[in-house]
Amino acid sequence: MTARNLLLLPGDGIGPEAMTEVRKIIAYMNEAQGAGFVTDEGLVGGSAYDAHGAAISEEDMAKALSADAVLFGAVGGPKWDDVPYEVRPEAGLLRLRKDLELFANLRPAICYPALANASSLKPELVEGLDILIVRELTGGVYFGEPKTITDLGNGQKRAIDTQVYDTYEIERISAVAFELARTRGNRVCSMEKRNVMKSGVLWNQVVTATHKEKFSDVKLDHMLADAGGMQLVRAPKQFDVIVTDNLFGDMLSDVAAMLTGSLGMLPSASLGAPDAKTGKRKALYEPVHGSAPDIAGTGVANPIAMIASFAMCLRYSFNMVAEADRLEKAIANVLDKGIRTGDIMAEGCRQVGTVEMGDAILAEF
Amino acid sequence: MTARNLLLLPGDGIGPEAMTEVRKIIAYMNEAQGAGFVTDEGLVGGSAYDAHGAAISEEDMAKALSADAVLFGAVGGPKWDDVPYEVRPEAGLLRLRKDLELFANLRPAICYPALANASSLKPELVEGLDILIVRELTGGVYFGEPKTITDLGNGQKRAIDTQVYDTYEIERISAVAFELARTRGNRVCSMEKRNVMKSGVLWNQVVTATHKEKFSDVKLDHMLADAGGMQLVRAPKQFDVIVTDNLFGDMLSDVAAMLTGSLGMLPSASLGAPDAKTGKRKALYEPVHGSAPDIAGTGVANPIAMIASFAMCLRYSFNMVAEADRLEKAIANVLDKGIRTGDIMAEGCRQVGTVEMGDAILAEF
Ligand SMILES: CC(C)[C@H](C(=O)O)[C@@H](O)C(=O)O
Ligand SMILES: CC(C)[C@H](C(=O)O)[C@@H](O)C(=O)O
Repeated sequence: MTARNLLLLPGDGIGPEAMTEVRKIIAYMNEAQGAGFVTDEGLVGGSAYDAHGAAISEEDMAKALSADAVLFGAVGGPKWDDVPYEVRPEAGLLRLRKDLELFANLRPAICYPALANASSLKPELVEGLDILIVRELTGGVYFGEPKTITDLGNGQKRAIDTQVYDTYEIERISAVAFELARTRGNRVCSMEKRNVMKSGVLWNQVVTATHKEKFSDVKLDHMLADAGGMQLVRAPKQFDVIVTDNLFGDMLSDVAAMLTGSLGMLPSASLGAPDAKTGKRKALYEPVHGSAPDIAGTGVANPIAMIASFAMCLRYSFNMVAEADRLEKAIANVLDKGIRTGDIMAEGCRQVGTVEMGDAILAEF
Repeated sequence: MTARNLLLLPGDGIGPEAMTEVRKIIAYMNEAQGAGFVTDEGLVGGSAYDAHGAAISEEDMAKALSADAVLFGAVGGPKWDDVPYEVRPEAGLLRLRKDLELFANLRPAICYPALANASSLKPELVEGLDILIVRELTGGVYFGEPKTITDLGNGQKRAIDTQVYDTYEIERISAVAFELARTRGNRVCSMEKRNVMKSGVLWNQVVTATHKEKFSDVKLDHMLADAGGMQLVRAPKQFDVIVTDNLFGDMLSDVAAMLTGSLGMLPSASLGAPDAKTGKRKALYEPVHGSAPDIAGTGVANPIAMIASFAMCLRYSFNMVAEADRLEKAIANVLDKGIRTGDIMAEGCRQVGTVEMGDAILAEF
């Protein structure tokens, strides 16, 4: 059997602690099931800057390009708040997304039943919530040129960012959304600001055309992105799959994640196009939460989002669907048993640290 | 005493019905208090398109430019979904904002105590909520050039929108935010995406410098806009004044509005710079809600946001602070009495239509 090559990029803050818990699961799968994972390691974000003066080294980029999948922890922290823009921690993540052409970012916003009360929303509005946000990840204002600050003299500067979308970029991300909808509730809601942005106009047209040509069995709605934000807060369960651009996706997926009350639990997958020959997609998996520098190193971080990201990796990179299901079930079981890290602690539950949480999930797996 | 010149632009959908209720209040203030309001009327949005083939006529633009304040209802509806981009209903509103140089959009997100239960958030998280979002309104991606769709051939098109911010634009909007903070909780939180956008980098620098130079008595925080959206959902009461750019302001103010459970009640003010000689600011006042075409003409629309927008007009354009306070109090009293339109109906309350709601507020005023 061929090796399954994983690159682990733990990053900064709580990233390394969370990654340690995933390593245990990988080791177990290798030993008990002969899963054949071969792992390599690299640096990204502030830790890469400290070591190499760049947010990711060329060597680690090369490793990422040749791996079957990348597991990414988190980047950033106050220590690097003042490093130059080009080498700030986020630049490592953005370069990975761009160079690996990970155009499809899948962000499930699910509400673990055991945590419905942790949401700031009324429990009946989030119980059973299961949305998938499909965010375009390699285009839009994140990468468009010009992207500059110019000195105009007279104490004035001008900052420019450019939102650019081409037809093919919108086509391929909407195809991903429609395909995924077919495996779920069969509904897609596309969000843009066509009333203000030309990219919104094109987005709307291309999604509509793609739907008509290839996916007319899926129910398609359109919503203005600002109204979409409102509707997420008002009645999130109305949505199945949401497809949107890079910047709106950034905002909307964060709002959706927070709605669930399960922020520390939410994984994400960033996927490239299937290779024409092998059918393999480049992929990166990362928790939705950040590097949480305030609690880094104290052993209290919740490793569930990182472990759930590995479950997505099993599902999408290695087609190990049964294993992914089992790992997700193990997480749910541990929560049902009332085992909690501090961030999701509730009355009557038992509070544990990062390592114990990882052990508990492994024991259920 | 000099006349107070108001231009009423009721617009589309429920706009005209809501405006009718404001007219009653204006008439009462003229008769009972000799307030001296002189009103003119115009068309905007779809109704202007139907009459003139433009989202606002040159004549009505001229009226808007010479009025002391504009009261704006709402624009848009399915009827005009397919009109050309340049004359779509929203273009009328955008032109008013741009030509009147209304760079400061004030969006209070307050939770009326009587409506805390209408929020999708847990009542304890929104009771007493009182945030002011100060949104930049004449810059950013709304107006930056190029803003185009180009045919690349081969079935491919490219859409471009451009986010542009100059130092002076950020300076003046942050000054407004700091000044308003001084009249409230004395705290400003500035939101951008400096980790991804050059305009976010400049925004952050200019807000910081403006604070240091002139407003160091105000507490200033910075938050990434996506994290800001999360924090609004998690714990909205942590904020006092939020200052942000045009597009983030659009998203964040809609999310904040929906949090309150009082969407049908929320007003907004869009202000220009004070005239160097007269000190007068150009101004437009409009409800945060849209034109609600589904209920237009049925007499059930909630006129409170429109009436509350007129209260902001009294406060900011005419310095009629006592009258503004009284009108806002009248709204709160009517709600306390359990008088409700359908959108905010609750058990034990009395449901009324648009006209009755207007009458009830007038009676309390
Ligand atoms: C860290 C940052 C660059 C990133 C983004 O804006 O995409 C993050 O917010 C995310 O959503 O993954
Ligand atoms: C109608 C539309 C152009 C407008 C905007 O995007 O600014 C609206 O959403 C708003 O927030 O006032």
